[in-house]
Amino acid sequence: MAPETATGREERILGIIETARAKRPKFRDERITMSHGAGGKATQSLIEGLFAPAFDVGELADAATVALDGAQVALTTDSFVVKPLRFPGGSIGELAVNGTVNDLAVAGARPVALSLSLILEEGLDSDLLRGEVEAIANAARAAGVEVVTGDTKVVERGHADGMYICTTGIGLRDERAELSPSALRPGDRMLVSGSIGHHGMAIMLARDEFELEAEIESDTCSLWPAVDALLDAAGRSLRCVRDATRGGVGSVLNELARASQVAMLVREGDVPVDPAVAGAAELLGIDPMYVANEGRLVAFVAPEAAEAAVVALHDAGCEQAAEIGEVRTEPPAMVLVETAFGGKRVMDQLVGDPLPRIC
Amino acid sequence: MAPETATGREERILGIIETARAKRPKFRDERITMSHGAGGKATQSLIEGLFAPAFDVGELADAATVALDGAQVALTTDSFVVKPLRFPGGSIGELAVNGTVNDLAVAGARPVALSLSLILEEGLDSDLLRGEVEAIANAARAAGVEVVTGDTKVVERGHADGMYICTTGIGLRDERAELSPSALRPGDRMLVSGSIGHHGMAIMLARDEFELEAEIESDTCSLWPAVDALLDAAGRSLRCVRDATRGGVGSVLNELARASQVAMLVREGDVPVDPAVAGAAELLGIDPMYVANEGRLVAFVAPEAAEAAVVALHDAGCEQAAEIGEVRTEPPAMVLVETAFGGKRVMDQLVGDPLPRIC
Repeated sequence: MAPETATGREERILGIIETARAKRPKFRDERITMSHGAGGKATQSLIEGLFAPAFDVGELADAATVALDGAQVALTTDSFVVKPLRFPGGSIGELAVNGTVNDLAVAGARPVALSLSLILEEGLDSDLLRGEVEAIANAARAAGVEVVTGDTKVVERGHADGMYICTTGIGLRDERAELSPSALRPGDRMLVSGSIGHHGMAIMLARDEFELEAEIESDTCSLWPAVDALLDAAGRSLRCVRDATRGGVGSVLNELARASQVAMLVREGDVPVDPAVAGAAELLGIDPMYVANEGRLVAFVAPEAAEAAVVALHDAGCEQAAEIGEVRTEPPAMVLVETAFGGKRVMDQLVGDPLPRIC
Repeated sequence: MAPETATGREERILGIIETARAKRPKFRDERITMSHGAGGKATQSLIEGLFAPAFDVGELADAATVALDGAQVALTTDSFVVKPLRFPGGSIGELAVNGTVNDLAVAGARPVALSLSLILEEGLDSDLLRGEVEAIANAARAAGVEVVTGDTKVVERGHADGMYICTTGIGLRDERAELSPSALRPGDRMLVSGSIGHHGMAIMLARDEFELEAEIESDTCSLWPAVDALLDAAGRSLRCVRDATRGGVGSVLNELARASQVAMLVREGDVPVDPAVAGAAELLGIDPMYVANEGRLVAFVAPEAAEAAVVALHDAGCEQAAEIGEVRTEPPAMVLVETAFGGKRVMDQLVGDPLPRIC
């Protein structure tokens, strides 16, 4: 990317966005498209324009909290429709456990138990099912959760691509945690727990649609140890945590900037991207910032706690954890990227779906 | 059905079943078939032969209990793949709410909150989605639960038949309830909360595969008011409750008889079946006992509490609730039907799937 001068461009951006930001999107599409499942702009319009008003849901988070007999119970759900079912570094079963565990973790809840709902395709090889049941059991054991109940449906041949999995998790809100997008303050530091884009690129390459060979494995893993370490190190200075799944880090940042009406600045050069991922992404013309991760979190911490938080992540096994930016006041609800050359550009919400069926 | 003489037949039955019963089924099928999703024998073998050992799940119930910070939290999950999406008396959205609420209710838990995970088909008409979101919101309101979190995935055209819905529910164990198949005792009375087979027959007729016109509506509704009434009337004398969904009353009774190793006797003439349902079932050659219900429960109560329990059900709006049989000792793990003519036959587990994609 060519160097740019910062000031003029930033002013122009500020003008454009005045009208665009802050408004709640409406859901006006006549038909559902793949992009409604991509985690970007269309997903947002579906959630904010249709689901949130219908169910009277306020702050949209990865997990809801329900008070039950004094206990603060966190609840989260996810369906997994990834193609192919198995890929370097993981499989749909492992993903289904970790994805749900992670939604609890980033909500500041210790994952406790999962329910498992399978939609199987008629004709599915039983050994494949056996393998996924084993993968689920192993991932659950590794994440310290129990699979306690389930359901199985079967649909006719030609549907469900082998299997879809819906996992729902319950956890217990950690008393050290008070995480919310509304806790974000200008000056807060933005951290990422490792190098980004592995999961999405691994899936893309596993699909064999491209003549591209690279050793890239999914990053799927439980993020509770990382969140636990962050809570220990930063306590209430930990403002907000998200796992950067569908739509990648770029989508998560946009979602949070919109929700909290703050600005965000990402220093592109500080974002850890492995050479193999960077190379594949460049060849495919995809920005790694929008590529899905299944074992990476973005965390915001008060400036005074940032260094300790990064060290805590390193100690928790997240060797490539890094500070990659900060929260600002202007332009509200927007994410800006500072390029390696000092220029700035808007990192907008994802439009369309460059990587369908990634999780 | 022709009259039979009871004694000889019963002895023969006892001989046959000695070898068949009590063994845990193994899962040995090479491929998944529609019958694995039918709630009968194949489903049982999948659950008991594959899932239960892999996840180390003990007693298989409609909902699991998880202790969270002192609270006894009930958790249950269900995927809904019903065809067609809308049918007389309901739709997939309404079914998804009531089905999950009912799994909590029959486990003796007051339903509190739901998560909602949608798998949508590319090209789905947004108005159809809007209609189902509204149906979900209305059903949740009627059942006194909140939809607190969700997820949406989109799969390509030709998959998912418009939409699949996975709902997971959490509830709070009611202190009056101590329900379990292992609580069943010989002499306990078997109740059903209303006339059976409406849901399954409504779906069958809505599919237009048969040249058959009948005014049959799904029975989909929340069963918590009925369970609440039973708990009030019978307290700890209420042994066990199940909702008779996939596989109908016949499958639920078989499951319980196997789980508790008791025998059950159903008096066929006492089972409420509406004439329209009975007529359609006869024409299609299906026993209403195996037809799915989405708003009917089977309850077992101690003999001294049976009358009060039936009255309580009537008062709770279940006008056709009736006592239909009892628990016996012999033959263990089996369900027998006493016909209107005094003969007896085995009501076996369902084999195959006469009514696929019913919920």
